[in-house]
Amino acid sequence: MKIGIIGSTGYAGGELVRLLWNHKEVEVKWYGSKSYQNEKYGKIYKNMFQLVDDVCMDENIEELADKVDVIFTATPQGFLASRLNDRILSKAKVIDLSADFRLKDVKDYEHWYGMEHKAPSLLFEAVYGLCELNREKIREARLVANPGCYPTCSLLSLYPLIKEGMIDTSTLIIDAKSGASGAGRGAKLEQLFCEVNENIKAYGVASHRHTPEIEEQLSLWAKKKVVINFTPHLVPMNRGILITAYGMLKKEVSYEEVKEVYDSYYKGEKYVRVLEKEQCPETKWVEGSNYVDVNFKIDKRTKRIILMGAMDNLVKGAAGQAVQNMNLMLGLPENEGLDLVPVFP
Amino acid sequence: MKIGIIGSTGYAGGELVRLLWNHKEVEVKWYGSKSYQNEKYGKIYKNMFQLVDDVCMDENIEELADKVDVIFTATPQGFLASRLNDRILSKAKVIDLSADFRLKDVKDYEHWYGMEHKAPSLLFEAVYGLCELNREKIREARLVANPGCYPTCSLLSLYPLIKEGMIDTSTLIIDAKSGASGAGRGAKLEQLFCEVNENIKAYGVASHRHTPEIEEQLSLWAKKKVVINFTPHLVPMNRGILITAYGMLKKEVSYEEVKEVYDSYYKGEKYVRVLEKEQCPETKWVEGSNYVDVNFKIDKRTKRIILMGAMDNLVKGAAGQAVQNMNLMLGLPENEGLDLVPVFP
Amino acid sequence: MKIGIIGSTGYAGGELVRLLWNHKEVEVKWYGSKSYQNEKYGKIYKNMFQLVDDVCMDENIEELADKVDVIFTATPQGFLASRLNDRILSKAKVIDLSADFRLKDVKDYEHWYGMEHKAPSLLFEAVYGLCELNREKIREARLVANPGCYPTCSLLSLYPLIKEGMIDTSTLIIDAKSGASGAGRGAKLEQLFCEVNENIKAYGVASHRHTPEIEEQLSLWAKKKVVINFTPHLVPMNRGILITAYGMLKKEVSYEEVKEVYDSYYKGEKYVRVLEKEQCPETKWVEGSNYVDVNFKIDKRTKRIILMGAMDNLVKGAAGQAVQNMNLMLGLPENEGLDLVPVFP
Amino acid sequence: MKIGIIGSTGYAGGELVRLLWNHKEVEVKWYGSKSYQNEKYGKIYKNMFQLVDDVCMDENIEELADKVDVIFTATPQGFLASRLNDRILSKAKVIDLSADFRLKDVKDYEHWYGMEHKAPSLLFEAVYGLCELNREKIREARLVANPGCYPTCSLLSLYPLIKEGMIDTSTLIIDAKSGASGAGRGAKLEQLFCEVNENIKAYGVASHRHTPEIEEQLSLWAKKKVVINFTPHLVPMNRGILITAYGMLKKEVSYEEVKEVYDSYYKGEKYVRVLEKEQCPETKWVEGSNYVDVNFKIDKRTKRIILMGAMDNLVKGAAGQAVQNMNLMLGLPENEGLDLVPVFP
Repeated sequence: MKIGIIGSTGYAGGELVRLLWNHKEVEVKWYGSKSYQNEKYGKIYKNMFQLVDDVCMDENIEELADKVDVIFTATPQGFLASRLNDRILSKAKVIDLSADFRLKDVKDYEHWYGMEHKAPSLLFEAVYGLCELNREKIREARLVANPGCYPTCSLLSLYPLIKEGMIDTSTLIIDAKSGASGAGRGAKLEQLFCEVNENIKAYGVASHRHTPEIEEQLSLWAKKKVVINFTPHLVPMNRGILITAYGMLKKEVSYEEVKEVYDSYYKGEKYVRVLEKEQCPETKWVEGSNYVDVNFKIDKRTKRIILMGAMDNLVKGAAGQAVQNMNLMLGLPENEGLDLVPVFP
Repeated sequence: MKIGIIGSTGYAGGELVRLLWNHKEVEVKWYGSKSYQNEKYGKIYKNMFQLVDDVCMDENIEELADKVDVIFTATPQGFLASRLNDRILSKAKVIDLSADFRLKDVKDYEHWYGMEHKAPSLLFEAVYGLCELNREKIREARLVANPGCYPTCSLLSLYPLIKEGMIDTSTLIIDAKSGASGAGRGAKLEQLFCEVNENIKAYGVASHRHTPEIEEQLSLWAKKKVVINFTPHLVPMNRGILITAYGMLKKEVSYEEVKEVYDSYYKGEKYVRVLEKEQCPETKWVEGSNYVDVNFKIDKRTKRIILMGAMDNLVKGAAGQAVQNMNLMLGLPENEGLDLVPVFP
Repeated sequence: MKIGIIGSTGYAGGELVRLLWNHKEVEVKWYGSKSYQNEKYGKIYKNMFQLVDDVCMDENIEELADKVDVIFTATPQGFLASRLNDRILSKAKVIDLSADFRLKDVKDYEHWYGMEHKAPSLLFEAVYGLCELNREKIREARLVANPGCYPTCSLLSLYPLIKEGMIDTSTLIIDAKSGASGAGRGAKLEQLFCEVNENIKAYGVASHRHTPEIEEQLSLWAKKKVVINFTPHLVPMNRGILITAYGMLKKEVSYEEVKEVYDSYYKGEKYVRVLEKEQCPETKWVEGSNYVDVNFKIDKRTKRIILMGAMDNLVKGAAGQAVQNMNLMLGLPENEGLDLVPVFP
Repeated sequence: MKIGIIGSTGYAGGELVRLLWNHKEVEVKWYGSKSYQNEKYGKIYKNMFQLVDDVCMDENIEELADKVDVIFTATPQGFLASRLNDRILSKAKVIDLSADFRLKDVKDYEHWYGMEHKAPSLLFEAVYGLCELNREKIREARLVANPGCYPTCSLLSLYPLIKEGMIDTSTLIIDAKSGASGAGRGAKLEQLFCEVNENIKAYGVASHRHTPEIEEQLSLWAKKKVVINFTPHLVPMNRGILITAYGMLKKEVSYEEVKEVYDSYYKGEKYVRVLEKEQCPETKWVEGSNYVDVNFKIDKRTKRIILMGAMDNLVKGAAGQAVQNMNLMLGLPENEGLDLVPVFP
């Protein structure tokens, strides 16, 4: 199978290249890059020196669709929506790592992203690519919207309890922490080493674009409109997302009852690890891998449950989940290319 | 004025030494250290090489009280409570950086700290040394309990709104993030560079000892029992605490109304900086200084207010506030030795 | 094939476990650990949670030799020398990640390591496991001394030019820089996060134990006694070694001539990448992989050549090279389990 | 006294502002900034929020000279040389933190910096502002060239031994390591957090512009042309420079002899600390302060001496030394505003 990547020289694109290099059934044939066209890929990403000899290509998705079986787009918001059409989808499957096709509600998209959606008719065809939940739909899909990094970690941490109706969704708060690679590889002042290092801050408070994405999924599960607080923070590390979520329990439950719910929902799920009692997820224990580690703690004093999830934002939060989606779409073993053992330390 | 420090070779003790070195009215005469007795202080803390020529002393507080005017204790829980008595307090003022005298409620102490309190009769004499709130009592005190790092940052961020009754205290959640120096200088596996670096995790979930300390103060202000969720996280940086707090607003308020409350409460307070609109506090902007930077954001969608505070845990969260307390107790200008400009980057 | 690891819970041991998990021809059957005997491996190294279900065993190498085909020892100096014997070697192949069998000269060992060598008779059987140089001997070996981290990086960077006699070996200086994992997982004060972070220092100046190891190999190649300066530095990062070496060129040479020497020596060597002109090796570009990236720069002004090499100290500098040695000893493809793409960022 | 800073919003400029804020005899009246003109300084450098209320000005040095007594220029190469003239110098003293007036040899400047020098006639008036060596000339100067960061650390580490002729200068090699703030605050890809963090590399090998600056001073002291190797490395930390220098001793000397030379040269020098035997300088122990910590180790095996020096690149390597120069030029106590205790951890 032949693969094309548009946006292969961003951090998520680079991670796709790393993962696909060890994938046995596919081969990357097109390394698209707006910034580095005609330069050798292995000179931009020197980890790939001697591993990838290709030269970067342009971002012509029409041409690309003729040449490959699957297209990944790791591109700025609006790029794919302004170019995608049925002709392309009839020739190649598309997995979009941008936010263009994640929200079903066009108004939400236009409100939170501040731009018109250029392909609203494709929104209903697009499948939200959270593999553990939408596996069957993804197998049939031509167009998959790869979930955002924060939503992936948040949703997999919350899913069993929301689905079971154990939490009062009106009390949900997600306090999230991410490493710097989530901001991408653009040369911005606030991403300089000296500005990020030895520092922590919140950003996008009450306004981050991943909020409606999380809310849309939660609302589907809860079968009512869910509105939450979501606050991301920038942590001085390269990779990793940790979410800490808070919610009121609807009724008193024991550790064992909640554990059983988690275990039953994630039984057989290779990439979601429900930790043992009292173990708090740490991003270092999943770094470089496709795992999400989740756990919870019940606070009897406040009747709240604290949910925690840790994940590598570039793997399960981006490229890894994208490959998992690709495997499903192509009928390959879901874990092909993804047996990545977390790198510690 | 003469100063003695018991526990001068921990991180908080070391910071006290750094701050007092530039203090014009006092001089450290006793560098107490359990681990490094008889060793040169400047050899343990090489930043002080040639600045401090003294040799470390033992921790005999009875003897020390005869020799100095003020004693700082930066010692493990239980140390001071098991040694302090009226005789010592009649000879020297004591500022305790441990938790021994922070909680008025002995039962809370014994429950959360898991040890008997050996000097309960002194609890009512002890003044909780949050300078901005208890300034007058501190001036008269013989014994000041220097607040914990997380409580200092949390309480100063929350104070105006709790005092004004603007937040439903039953909904309060504090999600806190701290650098590694907060864990002290003990040689523990989980504090090794490779374990902390490139990692973030929650710890002490629903069980951290700073919880009752925060709750006791909040309850005083709210004039009713307040129970909260408090979740600390370990961030890969040396210094700094950031708190992000969430609460339901009791009624709709505008940015300007809340800003005015903050401004009026902290008018004239040198070490609390209420930031401008949309500025999120960052720990790097206060590093090495005695400032707490606070701000807030109203989320109209959820009717919650998000409060943020940033502080250097070793300065305002420990040694700096201790010096501020000392200045008050000795009738010195409150800012003597504390005109520290934050170090950036 | 069955594998036993003694010292599986140090950082090098943990990396062995990570690499062998994806190895198709072998399986780890014995996770030896002095500190964590009887504890679940996946609880010590939580990256392996659900991947390794085994419980840690003791360090009885006699018993182990009966059960496995290959034994890795990632143990303190002196451990293996005091236990190894012909009986063990007749039952299992041994790959030693400690320094016990690296030096042929017992006097050097006893001088630099400050301990008696308990198995000098095995020294001549032991093969120095620098795969690229000693491939054929390794294939036949029962006992391989896996090279030290600094020596691996230094020797592979220097080899072609020393072998060709292009450098005046009396002028050789190696200035090395390493991440903190090289110091192991012991709970030592000087390895605490706050002591290593935001800091750089030299250590072991003119006395580091890797000096005689480097010198012994260089002397073999140069066919005369070589004495060098070797200075390691501790860098605030988890993984990676960079060496910068300096030597006088014996005669004027061009970039192209030196490049040709490097290219001819390392032609076909998968794990040594000779970079392109003007590219300086960076540890980040090899992180998590078995590559050593090398390059050089000729300084016409001083007639010196500056050699640079970058490597992951836990992979090519420890566990990766050990697996490479194992593959050779077992007649497996040399790259089995080692097709690790460097992780960036 | 009134001060103007051109380039006040770079990292060195920001550090000048921090240091001068606590200086008792001077006041900054002009915060020049090309990028942030008309913006509030405390909004760019939020550490200065509420401490500096001024708005950034332009970079008109002619106008500035009428308004202040001392001008600091922390500007790109070529800026000052293209604007400075006798009229300006007759009105205000100038301390230049760029390289424009550091080299006496115009040809060297034009060769290494690749630009024409626009004010060669002022080169001979300019005093090289290495305070410990040129104190008397600095007192009389109108124009001081503040030394580069690497040269300051290198030269103070080497000075006594070169001056005493103890080292064969033809064998000198300086291997230097610096934190990221040395690269300035420009938004460049290679300075992004994810590119610098968890990484170390050499750069500017055999071509760094600080080479001729170091050589010119060494040549003066050695009374002959000295040519060296100088290799800087980028270390993942905000602040700090460490140099490790190597040279052949001309004759056998003891530790005590060399120590005595250092002690006698630096007796009474407040900002150079000669460490005790076997102590290796570490950047963390001088962070935030004006100290340079130096030490050495004799290697009898190779007859080389290894010299080490650690310094904060933004203080003694830039703004601190500039303030020290200003104090000398204005006849103030040399340490005014510079009694900064190193911040640890």
